[in-house]
Amino acid sequence: MNLSPLQKARYQYSPKLPGMLRGGISEISVKVGAPTESVADQAKIKALFPNTYGKEEITFVKGSNTSAAKKQVVGVILSGGQAPGGHNVICGLYDAIKATDKNNVLLGFKGGPSGLIDDDFIEFTDEYINAYRNTGGFDIIGSGRTKLETEEQFKVVTEVAKKHGLTAIVIIGGDDSNTNAAVLAEYMAAHNTGVQVIGCPKTIDGDLKNEDIEASFGFDTATKTYSELIGNIERDANSAKKYWHFIKVMGRSASHVALECALETQPNICLIGEEVAAKKMSLAAIANYIADSVEKRGNNGENFGVAIIPEGIVEFVPEFSKLIAEINELLAGSKTEEFNALPDWDAKYAFIKKGLSAESFAVFEILPQFVQQQLFLERDPHGNVQVSLIESEKLFSEMVKNELAKRKAAGTYKGKFGAQHHFFGYEGRCAFPSNFDADYCYSLGYNAFMLIQYGYTGYLSKVSNISKPAEEWVAGGMPITKMMNMERRNGEDKPVIRKALVELDGAPFKFFAAHREEWAVKTSFTYPGAIQYFGPAEVCDLTTRTLALEKGQD
Amino acid sequence: MNLSPLQKARYQYSPKLPGMLRGGISEISVKVGAPTESVADQAKIKALFPNTYGKEEITFVKGSNTSAAKKQVVGVILSGGQAPGGHNVICGLYDAIKATDKNNVLLGFKGGPSGLIDDDFIEFTDEYINAYRNTGGFDIIGSGRTKLETEEQFKVVTEVAKKHGLTAIVIIGGDDSNTNAAVLAEYMAAHNTGVQVIGCPKTIDGDLKNEDIEASFGFDTATKTYSELIGNIERDANSAKKYWHFIKVMGRSASHVALECALETQPNICLIGEEVAAKKMSLAAIANYIADSVEKRGNNGENFGVAIIPEGIVEFVPEFSKLIAEINELLAGSKTEEFNALPDWDAKYAFIKKGLSAESFAVFEILPQFVQQQLFLERDPHGNVQVSLIESEKLFSEMVKNELAKRKAAGTYKGKFGAQHHFFGYEGRCAFPSNFDADYCYSLGYNAFMLIQYGYTGYLSKVSNISKPAEEWVAGGMPITKMMNMERRNGEDKPVIRKALVELDGAPFKFFAAHREEWAVKTSFTYPGAIQYFGPAEVCDLTTRTLALEKGQD
Repeated sequence: MNLSPLQKARYQYSPKLPGMLRGGISEISVKVGAPTESVADQAKIKALFPNTYGKEEITFVKGSNTSAAKKQVVGVILSGGQAPGGHNVICGLYDAIKATDKNNVLLGFKGGPSGLIDDDFIEFTDEYINAYRNTGGFDIIGSGRTKLETEEQFKVVTEVAKKHGLTAIVIIGGDDSNTNAAVLAEYMAAHNTGVQVIGCPKTIDGDLKNEDIEASFGFDTATKTYSELIGNIERDANSAKKYWHFIKVMGRSASHVALECALETQPNICLIGEEVAAKKMSLAAIANYIADSVEKRGNNGENFGVAIIPEGIVEFVPEFSKLIAEINELLAGSKTEEFNALPDWDAKYAFIKKGLSAESFAVFEILPQFVQQQLFLERDPHGNVQVSLIESEKLFSEMVKNELAKRKAAGTYKGKFGAQHHFFGYEGRCAFPSNFDADYCYSLGYNAFMLIQYGYTGYLSKVSNISKPAEEWVAGGMPITKMMNMERRNGEDKPVIRKALVELDGAPFKFFAAHREEWAVKTSFTYPGAIQYFGPAEVCDLTTRTLALEKGQD
Repeated sequence: MNLSPLQKARYQYSPKLPGMLRGGISEISVKVGAPTESVADQAKIKALFPNTYGKEEITFVKGSNTSAAKKQVVGVILSGGQAPGGHNVICGLYDAIKATDKNNVLLGFKGGPSGLIDDDFIEFTDEYINAYRNTGGFDIIGSGRTKLETEEQFKVVTEVAKKHGLTAIVIIGGDDSNTNAAVLAEYMAAHNTGVQVIGCPKTIDGDLKNEDIEASFGFDTATKTYSELIGNIERDANSAKKYWHFIKVMGRSASHVALECALETQPNICLIGEEVAAKKMSLAAIANYIADSVEKRGNNGENFGVAIIPEGIVEFVPEFSKLIAEINELLAGSKTEEFNALPDWDAKYAFIKKGLSAESFAVFEILPQFVQQQLFLERDPHGNVQVSLIESEKLFSEMVKNELAKRKAAGTYKGKFGAQHHFFGYEGRCAFPSNFDADYCYSLGYNAFMLIQYGYTGYLSKVSNISKPAEEWVAGGMPITKMMNMERRNGEDKPVIRKALVELDGAPFKFFAAHREEWAVKTSFTYPGAIQYFGPAEVCDLTTRTLALEKGQD
């Protein structure tokens, strides 16, 4: 094994715990708060979670540890996409478990939730854990996307738990995984298994956020990594003065990642899906909006720029969603075969023209050919269009090019337009966690064990006040049911944690909206540079602009 | 202006000079070495550079400054693609100029060599310079790709120099720009203009390297930035265990960047163009080589991996170069119109089949359709194929996929193959320079002025022993003609600095070759993480593995 100098140096980093957890295990006491209610649909959620609903919010305080002595055997899983800091959650959990009693055991189930079903696990030791402290990735035990949600799965998990004498399971995951953690907790309580279940809020997408969760872990590091790259590209654009760079960033549906990157780097353009939906913008309107910036800058002699495109943007364009629905309908069942049998693209195009509504065909017609073909030729196993594969950074750049050609012909645009395209996602999900994420994750894990030790189940490990220095962070737990409401999913009403979209009346978006007109025309780039782990606090320990603005600190 | 916390912090960094330059301007003396000869074609080069050929190598030493007092008015230009540290060359130059005499002047000509012809300039001040210390980019004065090489241009430059009373011109650029610096120096000497010309070695590509230049600036920071991203992707691949990532990296023809990134990150595969050429490998042979790794890993249950592809790879595949030549011939002159008039791709394909040799058509036939179409449809203004646009990361991934399908059918391959594609280039050219590049560049600039002050012309600012701590670096100058030989360029014999390709018997390649069989099968990833500016020296101040290996330090 050949470790990088940074990896060796990061092993030496001691993550900062919230002040109230720093006195050592014997000095952590519980303050029980008020009973909770779910954010909506209280009667329905209560009925679905008779054993775990309505519990009290709890906070840890400095004081005598009053928890009962008991051998703890805890299982932990990583669920879903990677996020920087996952290893530190496990390290914090391990350290709290072992500090409480050296004979306590932490098992890691491998490859995500399926590890718990297949009973594929390792037992953590000091040596094993130490190789992962303050590192990125989920390779410590791997992750996976299996969903733990059926009665049958729960029965298997109960058997596995019984076999190992598990006292608790910690699920590190996003909104769906934490929803499932609550359902599993209820199952375990209803069946008197004695197994507690605790969740931890993970996702780089930033969409697991509500009045109880100030931020999901990984968002800080991932957005800082993307912002490093966007800033470097901005500086390149401003040096070469030759290209417009269209940069798509990961983040699923919500535009939190794009917005945070825009706040960090001040690009000329950043699209926000939630705004596009609210204003019912068409593809052409979006392309025109970008072209306006290109035109104004070009007429000022600045034939370069940077536009940030959120991954989920096209789903928010009403006319595009309608087109997708019609295409899925047009090719449903045996009609796919009929379509595939057509001899060439011209014949297919005629078939499409005939099959789509006039309105949708008008949208289809303005798409660049590579997008048109992608919509029809690359479909998922159910025959549906794969919206996530659409290269929206190229789609908009092509539409902008066509719009500018028209304006040039009309004499209003005098500049030159050349484009480069980028997509950043995998580059940031496994970066070494920033000091913030290293601290936050370690605290979430440490805190998760304190919830277990004090007998709580169906709770989310909650660390708040995180826009302040770690000394002032508040550690505790919140019943997951408090964050739930009922939503329609796959034709069924389900109790779920609501996904957080960008709020158009929230401070982060409003800050952006107040500045973007200036940024669109005047080069106002900010260059964040690479994440720093060792330098001055203002360089190394600041978390996101999103959080600072939400907390009124900016 | 909204500066990032890192940018503010980097303003405070004091770049390290070579020990011998640290005593202050009054304590820098010259040690004159032996007269030099060009590396080859001595008689021809001597005849072309009668006034500047054969000069002595010089070294600066601690001692009384014996240079003549004289008001210096120096012009500087940035030439060609961005490289981290360009700003620091100018800062070092400025500081040495002003430390020698406050009345000395530094002019920056804007937008590259064309600024010198158009007389578009600014005069540097403390305030202006201070805003660019230790930052990335070339935005301080911009850059450009105009070549200064004709007699007519030199006349204009002479006029501009006379107008400003220029005593010297510093050209910061790659091999071509430094070749042109030597030609300009000769012109200025032959015409008794009194204008000295000094070059500085810049390029992220790493191909400006010889027995006098240990490394071009920017290579260190750019490869560290790409390695950060490749390492993050490796960690993601090793966590999700789901994808093979094909990562193309910039670097023009030579594979230095790819090789350095491979040494830093230990991927499963790294192609080296120079080896492909030496072994006369076919496209199919390369795809098979990658497929062998995928197959072995897949059969071990590891259906993921990382392959690094150098930007210039396809130019090194003999059969591909032949195909390109035939295509250019096939579409020369009016034949393009004939081709474009064909009704559809099938008709075009028939035309291609008829026009190519059987050998080249066999190569064409195995290319994925998107590459076939790219070769014929996207051509430069001269009608030639644009080799640099070929998405070789997708080309090889597609060929590997096809090869694996055959092996699956034959029963030898049992794994799954899914691919992701990346191209890293613009992300690294304007990063904040690493401490190494910040120090090296500042030293190159400071040293360049000492060469001017001591009356030298046609020299390259040379800082050597750079694999050691800066205290031990050796500052001096080398006549550019020493690095030259005659080469055929565009049908003419020209005196040029030879481009350095990866040497297959050099230590960096040999180290890679000794380990790659293991890396191809066993996951041996190394995760370098982001460039650090403030931490322990072993994290912040190490330069490239390439240089360490070349110097026998690894």
